[in-house]
Amino acid sequence: MPAGIVQMAPDPTQFLHWRAERVSPPEALSERLLRRGDSAIVDFGRHLTGHLSFSIAGEGRGVDAPARLKLTFGEVPAEVAQPFDPYQGGLGRAWLQDEVINLDVLPAVIRMPRRYAFRYVKLEVVDTSPNYAVRIGKIQATALSSAGGDPPPLPEAVPAMLRQTDRVSIATLRDCMQTVFEDGPKRDRRLWIGDLRLQALTNYATFRSNDLVKRCLYLFAAFPREDGLVPACVFEDPEPHRGHEYIIDYAALYPAAVLDYAKATGDWNTAVDLWPVVRQQMDLLSAYVGSDGIFAAPARSWVFIDWCDALDRTAAMQGTFVYSLRQALELARHCGAPGEAAKYQQLIARMTSAARGAFYDFPRQVFVSGPKRQVSWASQAWMALSGIATAAEAAQAFRTVAAQTGAVRPGAPYLYHYVAEAMLRCGMKLEAKQLVETYWGGMVKAGADTFWEVYDPSNAGLSPYGSTQVNSYCHAWSCTPSYLLRTLNLA
Amino acid sequence: MPAGIVQMAPDPTQFLHWRAERVSPPEALSERLLRRGDSAIVDFGRHLTGHLSFSIAGEGRGVDAPARLKLTFGEVPAEVAQPFDPYQGGLGRAWLQDEVINLDVLPAVIRMPRRYAFRYVKLEVVDTSPNYAVRIGKIQATALSSAGGDPPPLPEAVPAMLRQTDRVSIATLRDCMQTVFEDGPKRDRRLWIGDLRLQALTNYATFRSNDLVKRCLYLFAAFPREDGLVPACVFEDPEPHRGHEYIIDYAALYPAAVLDYAKATGDWNTAVDLWPVVRQQMDLLSAYVGSDGIFAAPARSWVFIDWCDALDRTAAMQGTFVYSLRQALELARHCGAPGEAAKYQQLIARMTSAARGAFYDFPRQVFVSGPKRQVSWASQAWMALSGIATAAEAAQAFRTVAAQTGAVRPGAPYLYHYVAEAMLRCGMKLEAKQLVETYWGGMVKAGADTFWEVYDPSNAGLSPYGSTQVNSYCHAWSCTPSYLLRTLNLA
Repeated sequence: MPAGIVQMAPDPTQFLHWRAERVSPPEALSERLLRRGDSAIVDFGRHLTGHLSFSIAGEGRGVDAPARLKLTFGEVPAEVAQPFDPYQGGLGRAWLQDEVINLDVLPAVIRMPRRYAFRYVKLEVVDTSPNYAVRIGKIQATALSSAGGDPPPLPEAVPAMLRQTDRVSIATLRDCMQTVFEDGPKRDRRLWIGDLRLQALTNYATFRSNDLVKRCLYLFAAFPREDGLVPACVFEDPEPHRGHEYIIDYAALYPAAVLDYAKATGDWNTAVDLWPVVRQQMDLLSAYVGSDGIFAAPARSWVFIDWCDALDRTAAMQGTFVYSLRQALELARHCGAPGEAAKYQQLIARMTSAARGAFYDFPRQVFVSGPKRQVSWASQAWMALSGIATAAEAAQAFRTVAAQTGAVRPGAPYLYHYVAEAMLRCGMKLEAKQLVETYWGGMVKAGADTFWEVYDPSNAGLSPYGSTQVNSYCHAWSCTPSYLLRTLNLA
Repeated sequence: MPAGIVQMAPDPTQFLHWRAERVSPPEALSERLLRRGDSAIVDFGRHLTGHLSFSIAGEGRGVDAPARLKLTFGEVPAEVAQPFDPYQGGLGRAWLQDEVINLDVLPAVIRMPRRYAFRYVKLEVVDTSPNYAVRIGKIQATALSSAGGDPPPLPEAVPAMLRQTDRVSIATLRDCMQTVFEDGPKRDRRLWIGDLRLQALTNYATFRSNDLVKRCLYLFAAFPREDGLVPACVFEDPEPHRGHEYIIDYAALYPAAVLDYAKATGDWNTAVDLWPVVRQQMDLLSAYVGSDGIFAAPARSWVFIDWCDALDRTAAMQGTFVYSLRQALELARHCGAPGEAAKYQQLIARMTSAARGAFYDFPRQVFVSGPKRQVSWASQAWMALSGIATAAEAAQAFRTVAAQTGAVRPGAPYLYHYVAEAMLRCGMKLEAKQLVETYWGGMVKAGADTFWEVYDPSNAGLSPYGSTQVNSYCHAWSCTPSYLLRTLNLA
């Protein structure tokens, strides 16, 4: 049920420059008659993924024309405060959640057939007729999620901000959990490997909807490229099929997702069943490791690591693949593949040695990447997670990079997660906690009901797509603080 | 099935300033891939009232976003050639036939749920995504009408223009015949008495869907005002109910519609059944006849007669009510109400005498109306039809008014019909034929597939609603040439 009627006020002190102000209780909506040009913004009080329904009646001398309404759904105030058009974004305009509907017969109960991700709904009466106005009532949302009930809250001993961050993480995951772990319910309902892996880890610590993880692992296994590489993403409609993107580091993380699942559930039968898919990824990706022991992604392939154009990905990709080999090694042992296990072990050793030579800048005590010897947070994170760096080296490297203003910082929550996890794994609990408090906590302070796809505290206009209107404000890869808090004992 | 793909070219020589130019056969639509900003206009080759369906598929690297389409339905080229917004019309904006739809899953078969009145459909791709374009195919319309098959054509001996006018009349009536005789399927699906009467007359000469007339007569009888006056119009949805308008001359024509029906069908039982309703109209309206024998509509009541602000309606209303009394008189005799019959006969005599004294300008040989002694076509028509004028007087009066440039001319086809009928009834067959050839023939020459709600050859911008975009271009009251030709032997 709606929580209130709000108006959006411009406010330069807010991160996205708009603030929702409650103007009346939800009942106020049906107390108003709405005519041409009138509008109201309904606040549901929380983010949700789902459907909207409402009743609408005409009142006046006669309901002698159809009613034309515009509905705009927003995850954040800025989406309903500013017009979507003219739209300059790089992604399809249809992701922006607005509808124009014409109602021939009143009164009516309207059930909007599409699914939206929203907290706010702006209702605009484009027109009625001079003879009548409309009254809108019984507005309600049906929230959808395949997640069960919320997990118990964190103990009171955990600082309030971290407990709130945990709650927002759980809400983010909940609203992305549908028939797959969606990337972002507003704008990308696909299942992506990189996001799945982080959602699954958080799920084991919270909802424990383990069959949903299993379904997703099989969806990737079911639709490989002709050569066997798993696709970066899978669509469910009109029937399940692979997306056209292939991301090298995402394919490398497929074994990790399988191993995480088996460990969290004890369902090693599934791991055995999926082992051939895991082995094939390792075979395909191993071919990109040169005689120098360095992973060299083929030209025009996509290595993601982070939303960051400036990032040199060589070191991070090397680390990701060594990390992947470690997961595959553990799976090989469990799945009765000693030959593979031995092969992976040798490759880990060769790549670790090569990486230390190629990427470790001993005098500066930091890992570098690429011909310009770029220093980035991404490189340190993956050198740490892969074990190429020792814990002590990694901790020192993080301190070095933190002090270096020119270092390439993470661009999006996905990499922030791996940085925090890497810090925890090399004994930097305090720093990891500060990172979570600053970064995810920053979103909480900025009013996030669910965590965002991109967030750069220093740049409110950041969008990978040329328009913050099309950014996703409930995005799966941002949900990991609950994993860090509940599984890795961040607090 | 579509007849072709067209583009709309501005053309000041055309009545509505746009011309449809065929650019390719209908198959060309599905041969094109459409991206953001692309559009196509499909021409169905004739006007129709009904539904639209089409198939749509995405082609490219991946269908990774919803498709957003805009569809605009036009009865005439101008509606799809010019943007609807900003809309300045006085009627509800929702009458303009455009839809914005978002399609989450492709391929899909789309059946637009609403009904439209159209010949042209403009398809605009608002957006897809950078990774795919759409292909639209299998576009087809399902035309709806409760009319049966077309009547046989007029004989070859009838001049070609009149035969074409007859065909357009029949198409107009067909597309207005649904579950009631609609006023105009684009914009006013109500049943209005004045329009019903003309449609019914044309129907008896063409489709002979007599049960539909009967249904409509009962709908008016079912929903009178508290005092018994029949409403000017009836709505069918969400359940049948009366409109809020009352039109004095329309109520006066209800007896005529009942009598026409009984005579055309021989179903006098229905006339007897409806007689109490007829009698009540006569009782109510007779009360407006003053001691001077002149009909004086109450203040703030609506006397329609014609779309024409300048018209003084006193004489025409007097004529309409005397005409009505004559129909009621005939019904009274058939329905065994001799007392009513005698009363009507007396009132006819008294009103005729009064009208001749009040409205006939003997020296000028014309009927005048109102304190400024206004000369109008409307006054002559209703003096003739009512029998207040003799046939010879009426014929002379029409000649007088035709020669008088300051006379108030008819504004819309509804009055043009009664002028033509009056001319025929006073022996002016040639003039009536010329009127039909000039007025309805003018619409035919201007490309009308169906006859329009308003048409003033000297003013293409005429609209009773402040915008020609919201005018109806298939309007019931314009369908009478078939009645004039087939029943009144115009040719």
